[in-house]
Amino acid sequence: MNIITNPKRSIWCSLTERPYVDNKSVHTVVKEVFENVKNYGDKSLIEYTKKFDNIELATIKVEAKSITNSEFIISHKLKDSIDLAFKNIYKFHKSQIQKKEIVKINEGINCWQEKRPIERVGFYIPGGTAPLFSTVLMLGIPSLIANCPDRILCTPPDKNGEIPVEILYVCKICKIKNIFKVGGSQAIAAMTLGTKTIPMVNKIFGPGNQYVTIAKKYSMNFGVSIDMPAGPSELLVLADESANPKFVASDLLSQAEHGCDSQVILVSNSKKIINDINNEIDIQKKKLERINIINESLKNSKSVFFNLIDDALDFINDYAPEHYIINVKNEDYCISKLVNAGSVFLGNYTPESAGDYASGTNHTLPTNGYAKQYSGVNTDSFLKTITFQKITKFGLKSISSAVETMAEHEGLDAHKNAVSIRINSNES
Amino acid sequence: MNIITNPKRSIWCSLTERPYVDNKSVHTVVKEVFENVKNYGDKSLIEYTKKFDNIELATIKVEAKSITNSEFIISHKLKDSIDLAFKNIYKFHKSQIQKKEIVKINEGINCWQEKRPIERVGFYIPGGTAPLFSTVLMLGIPSLIANCPDRILCTPPDKNGEIPVEILYVCKICKIKNIFKVGGSQAIAAMTLGTKTIPMVNKIFGPGNQYVTIAKKYSMNFGVSIDMPAGPSELLVLADESANPKFVASDLLSQAEHGCDSQVILVSNSKKIINDINNEIDIQKKKLERINIINESLKNSKSVFFNLIDDALDFINDYAPEHYIINVKNEDYCISKLVNAGSVFLGNYTPESAGDYASGTNHTLPTNGYAKQYSGVNTDSFLKTITFQKITKFGLKSISSAVETMAEHEGLDAHKNAVSIRINSNES
Repeated sequence: MNIITNPKRSIWCSLTERPYVDNKSVHTVVKEVFENVKNYGDKSLIEYTKKFDNIELATIKVEAKSITNSEFIISHKLKDSIDLAFKNIYKFHKSQIQKKEIVKINEGINCWQEKRPIERVGFYIPGGTAPLFSTVLMLGIPSLIANCPDRILCTPPDKNGEIPVEILYVCKICKIKNIFKVGGSQAIAAMTLGTKTIPMVNKIFGPGNQYVTIAKKYSMNFGVSIDMPAGPSELLVLADESANPKFVASDLLSQAEHGCDSQVILVSNSKKIINDINNEIDIQKKKLERINIINESLKNSKSVFFNLIDDALDFINDYAPEHYIINVKNEDYCISKLVNAGSVFLGNYTPESAGDYASGTNHTLPTNGYAKQYSGVNTDSFLKTITFQKITKFGLKSISSAVETMAEHEGLDAHKNAVSIRINSNES
Repeated sequence: MNIITNPKRSIWCSLTERPYVDNKSVHTVVKEVFENVKNYGDKSLIEYTKKFDNIELATIKVEAKSITNSEFIISHKLKDSIDLAFKNIYKFHKSQIQKKEIVKINEGINCWQEKRPIERVGFYIPGGTAPLFSTVLMLGIPSLIANCPDRILCTPPDKNGEIPVEILYVCKICKIKNIFKVGGSQAIAAMTLGTKTIPMVNKIFGPGNQYVTIAKKYSMNFGVSIDMPAGPSELLVLADESANPKFVASDLLSQAEHGCDSQVILVSNSKKIINDINNEIDIQKKKLERINIINESLKNSKSVFFNLIDDALDFINDYAPEHYIINVKNEDYCISKLVNAGSVFLGNYTPESAGDYASGTNHTLPTNGYAKQYSGVNTDSFLKTITFQKITKFGLKSISSAVETMAEHEGLDAHKNAVSIRINSNES
């Protein structure tokens, strides 16, 4: 990795920039896909699947018995692993449910918030070399806890026209019953517009390639909302001399293997540790299967040295990493200065991959600097907050003059009248 | 208002549709405005203000002393009203701050969430016939509680090139120090792209006309987020024979006066109450200043009669009202069946205008059916949730096999290795 020493603040902007992706042509394709799905519905989905996934499907929907049977087909070892991950993720996301608290503003004025599930949610799970069943856990569990009544999942079929058993099994334990064999931007279009087979949803979740990402953004023009804007995955590690170079190198490599467009950043106040970690990266990467991808993404990556830890912490907030490993002696200080990050991993024995799979936290997180204003997926992502208020005549009297005066100044006399008519009434 | 009786479910879709707005030409204008603000910065803002607000400004930024002095210029009565509203809104939004709770997933695995403020937020406050200072309260107070370090506000100047004293006073008590005399889509462009005078922000809040709404949506292409997609304001009242027709009519009229594109819906299981309320509307509206606007928006409005309360409640969830007044005997049942709404007002003495100004709840709410997946503005709108995890070697051992197995099945051996290397290490 390229090493940068004490960069001036004036160049931080370029250092925190993510690799540029040109996706103008993708927009045109996505627009066309939406047009076709709108006009031809399921027929267009079957055709796109034939074109992109090389398989001609008779039906798009996965049969219930395939989901039920997945439990008997999946290996015991994988099943046990998934079950353990389920338990931990469930526990953490269940803890996020808040109790209703009635706030007494004044005598006779009570206000409170209640949460309700988003009724129809759609999940997109990419295909590719390996099935990302862990993401099904990360979307399925909080939506199960939030009690969303209609949940559907789209994912491209494999070369035999089937959905991998790992995905089916996770759907089974997350109680997701409607699974559709559709991938790419056509899946997003179907969940946005609805077809005869695939119902339209209120909110779409999940990762994907550029086509899926652009399609999710485009879906917002049709009244759908999305989990968050997406970009390639990234990791920033802050390490001092208390860190173990072998461990840190393994973390950076685990992120670098995601894709050629992934990015890893090492920040340290020790030149020795930067060198040691870079040496370890060179040693460890040779033994890894995805070395070609790793070599590509290391080109986007850098080690940044700062004399002062405060500069380092400011730089990290500017970067706003999706994943952030804090591997230093004084981690409490670093947490206190942290403003922007998706998920934080503390100390020598908290690798990112623990959180990716089984520690309990969610791995659907804001990339591309969006941690400055977005949260990762959590149980709240599947809920809306509704405010309630109940006022008595006594309570209304206590604010009536204020409301009347303010409404009058905003030129809204019907607003004023809605209070006056009640206060002047003889009813109790 | 047009009265509809027991509509079949097959036509609910058209009944819950909002008035159609054609805004194709607006898109072109907004794109051009962004282009000009990008290229010419403050100069273009001065020019647009001259063009649209008929005033040539020497400086865009409001001087600190204008904000300070507002306290001595504003009338005592209005100041006291605003101060009372501030107190109530502050109390309710302060109650929304959650305590950090560490979740022990297993021995040696702790996970938790911490919230951090969004660093840079921008507020848009429309101009027009009357200054909407109440919206400044609704955005200023939760952002003050969330502790957002940089908050700016844009609003168009009046015909003398000044900002109304009501807005300045609310900014003063909400500690908003950076106020800019810019309106319309050029204000949104400036907060998105930044100019010499106006800093760029991470998230933009606030209502506006079509140009502002489209500009906010367009700003998302530049990495900014927004509070929510917007549309004209709306109110749905559910009333049975326990309701007071005078009160309900006054509520419907208070919503109808907002703008010609506003919509009010009355739902009831009593034909008598529908007739009584419609008669009251005819009587009361004659005394109101904004009768022309009211007559226009009543054209978009309807009364819907249902024999069965359960049908009415399903219909209301389909409509997903921004404001929802429940004025029936058995309100608890209606609350239990409620899934989609922005803010709910319960009983005879809870007019919408109480919540618009001073009861404590927020009035920046999802319109246009977006209550199906969006919450109104609350303190959380100004915060991000960051997840943390800390694992010991003992804790990591308890999930290591699961993580290794799952990573292997997803074809990610560097993810697996980040765990294995720690478990196999001799360090403690």
